[in-house]
Amino acid sequence: MSRITGLHVRDIRFPTSREHDGSDAMNPAPDYSAAYVEITTDALDGLVGTGFVFTIGRGNEVQEAAIAALRGHVVGADTEAVLADMGGTWRAMVHDSQLRWLGPEKGVMHMAIGAVVNALWDLRAKRAGQPLWALLADLSPEELVDLVDFRYLTDAITPTEALELFRAAEPHRATRRARLEQQGYQAYTTTPGWLGYDDEKLARLCREAVDEGFEQIKLKVGGDVDEDVRRMGIARATVGPDVRIAIDANQRWDVDEAVTWIERLRPFDIAWVEEPTSPDDILAHAEIARRIAPIPVATGEHMANRVIAKQLIQAGSMSVLQIDATRVAGVNENLAILLLAAKHGVRVCPHAGGVGLCEAVQHLSMFDAVALTGDLDTRCIEFVDHLHEHFVTPVDVHDGRYWPPTAPGAGTEMLADSLDAYAFPDGPAWAVVDTETVPDAVRVA
Amino acid sequence: MSRITGLHVRDIRFPTSREHDGSDAMNPAPDYSAAYVEITTDALDGLVGTGFVFTIGRGNEVQEAAIAALRGHVVGADTEAVLADMGGTWRAMVHDSQLRWLGPEKGVMHMAIGAVVNALWDLRAKRAGQPLWALLADLSPEELVDLVDFRYLTDAITPTEALELFRAAEPHRATRRARLEQQGYQAYTTTPGWLGYDDEKLARLCREAVDEGFEQIKLKVGGDVDEDVRRMGIARATVGPDVRIAIDANQRWDVDEAVTWIERLRPFDIAWVEEPTSPDDILAHAEIARRIAPIPVATGEHMANRVIAKQLIQAGSMSVLQIDATRVAGVNENLAILLLAAKHGVRVCPHAGGVGLCEAVQHLSMFDAVALTGDLDTRCIEFVDHLHEHFVTPVDVHDGRYWPPTAPGAGTEMLADSLDAYAFPDGPAWAVVDTETVPDAVRVA
Repeated sequence: MSRITGLHVRDIRFPTSREHDGSDAMNPAPDYSAAYVEITTDALDGLVGTGFVFTIGRGNEVQEAAIAALRGHVVGADTEAVLADMGGTWRAMVHDSQLRWLGPEKGVMHMAIGAVVNALWDLRAKRAGQPLWALLADLSPEELVDLVDFRYLTDAITPTEALELFRAAEPHRATRRARLEQQGYQAYTTTPGWLGYDDEKLARLCREAVDEGFEQIKLKVGGDVDEDVRRMGIARATVGPDVRIAIDANQRWDVDEAVTWIERLRPFDIAWVEEPTSPDDILAHAEIARRIAPIPVATGEHMANRVIAKQLIQAGSMSVLQIDATRVAGVNENLAILLLAAKHGVRVCPHAGGVGLCEAVQHLSMFDAVALTGDLDTRCIEFVDHLHEHFVTPVDVHDGRYWPPTAPGAGTEMLADSLDAYAFPDGPAWAVVDTETVPDAVRVA
Repeated sequence: MSRITGLHVRDIRFPTSREHDGSDAMNPAPDYSAAYVEITTDALDGLVGTGFVFTIGRGNEVQEAAIAALRGHVVGADTEAVLADMGGTWRAMVHDSQLRWLGPEKGVMHMAIGAVVNALWDLRAKRAGQPLWALLADLSPEELVDLVDFRYLTDAITPTEALELFRAAEPHRATRRARLEQQGYQAYTTTPGWLGYDDEKLARLCREAVDEGFEQIKLKVGGDVDEDVRRMGIARATVGPDVRIAIDANQRWDVDEAVTWIERLRPFDIAWVEEPTSPDDILAHAEIARRIAPIPVATGEHMANRVIAKQLIQAGSMSVLQIDATRVAGVNENLAILLLAAKHGVRVCPHAGGVGLCEAVQHLSMFDAVALTGDLDTRCIEFVDHLHEHFVTPVDVHDGRYWPPTAPGAGTEMLADSLDAYAFPDGPAWAVVDTETVPDAVRVA
């Protein structure tokens, strides 16, 4: 028996705004960051559970405070009891009535729970000596259903229906796993498409994406429609007619504006339109989807929780659901969302990129491919080739595919040197920044 | 000319869980709290702008960190420029792309902006020597429209339509203001209805409510249906057939459960059913509203922002919209919501209680009564007779009505003695608490 002895949080920031990496219509100058959590125990194995919330800079310290507020739920607890009952552990945090008021179930406090939940899953997977996707895919249907909180979901899926879905998949797990390990999981790349890149860089990165075996790329749009038409023309001419091109507006438009803008881009054959408007706007997404059909709408990376996911599905707001590893309350809530999508026949193509989002979210898709829908044909995971070098077990993406991780854990652990170098505000990476690019909050404080 | 010299945040908590004040089906033991902000300038008037986010205990320090993260947007700025362009000030904070990622526009970070925005409005009203409601009601239609961010709203209301609403009301402002000052604004009381109270206390508080002139009371429900039927019977027998009784489930149910539960209570003549399910669940609220008609559904105190408000109206999710002074990004966003409701003919009956919510939200309803809908007949503001003694200008509620405040400001300023006494964790009110009632986070830290 062991006890959880510590929950340590760090403010890690990468000064990415210097290079315009990650720039889009709503986020012109992000500094990719992580509020990073380490959970320690007094067990002799010395294993540490790691998780994080991805943010884009200022306010990462708020996220850090929210994670620290969960200390009382974890530190001092019996490690085995916490890890053996991850459904109960999740409920205890999400249903803490005083903390719940701060959302409820959304924003900073909810994402903080996600980081702690994911760190506990990382610890459990490390202790089991399995990568998270395989650990989850080895659980019984009953154990999986117990991980999910069905409150507010029963008008769309019941525990009984969830159990049936997992049971139906159970006999196919072994063959599906073999297929996953043999052919990998389709990736698509956003690397070429950031708004801050010039035409030469756009074309070069498009060419490289095709050469590297990607069958889909994505372009950021929504800054200026004429510019978007021009950039889309360059991209389509570069990749040819057979590579799919998705576009991503990052919440830039109202309904009419979205429809008008997308009409200008329709001739270029659009794989999907991502986040055309507010991530909270279920009805506007549905209206846009209806008016731009048959172009698919994709959304979900900013959906606050499973209740929003449920409604996006119920209202027909999108046909591609984009889960994110650190936006909702961790693995358990993403299982709920995968179940909703499976029941209602919506394909899930996760959002990734940022800091460690690729490393984390691949486990959810691969679990789904083995133990839930088994869909390896119509789904793909976003890939951005950026910042992976800071992780202990970086993703293995080649030939346009994610290859299943084999290392124990959830993929969320960062290298000790990176944690030191990018500590904010005192790490060496920040010491050399000129004052112009230092966030306001730091300058003033 | 003056500069804003400081943004100071305090963690203020009242140990209300000791008395079960404020207990409901989702919040069994709240410690009513405020992340309280003071904005100072170097002007000779010495005026301080005050605002807060209401929370129910644990996590108030997270809210405090979020408010502190906004320091760079305010401190050092030209006071007059900030206050003269409150629309621009609001946009600069809400559209800060790095901070926006933490919501977007929801939860801890969004409420923090609300506290700062409200503190700036308090400062502006104090400088003008006017109560906030009167200050707002004296602005021109053009100035009012400029305060509102119409992003994501134009499928429900455009700036032009908003301008028309304000212009149509303008000729009636003087007569409406006279009427408001003469007859007050209808209040209803939740004081009798908390779940933690015994039958004798319930009946006594119901009697007192009627004696004090309230024409509506509200009971918390959702713990146990047989108990609710019994308590509702006591309340109805005590107040008689002419006093309206609303019920509040505080998000306790899924759709089918809500409908079944409400059917049991229907015989008691229900004024409205409040928060039957998740505050994010626009479609479930709409389904419940359809199935329990003609009993009205009320919701909104936990709606994250104007985009959720818009959809609740568009989907017919409720017929009573309950704005809250500190849940969204302050006065400006509540103006947007009042406009949406006015355009679509939905009545607004604000949520209040907590710490200072009555003091704050009355200004919004009174502004609406003078300069927007002019509705003094079908609307009412929640009232709970609790913790008002800690405010410099507590509400004046008598004869079942709120009476318009006359003191300059937004009503949000707390007494210096109270701020000292209830400072958490070091104030004298907390020093005497036994360890059992100290929040986990404190015990562990």
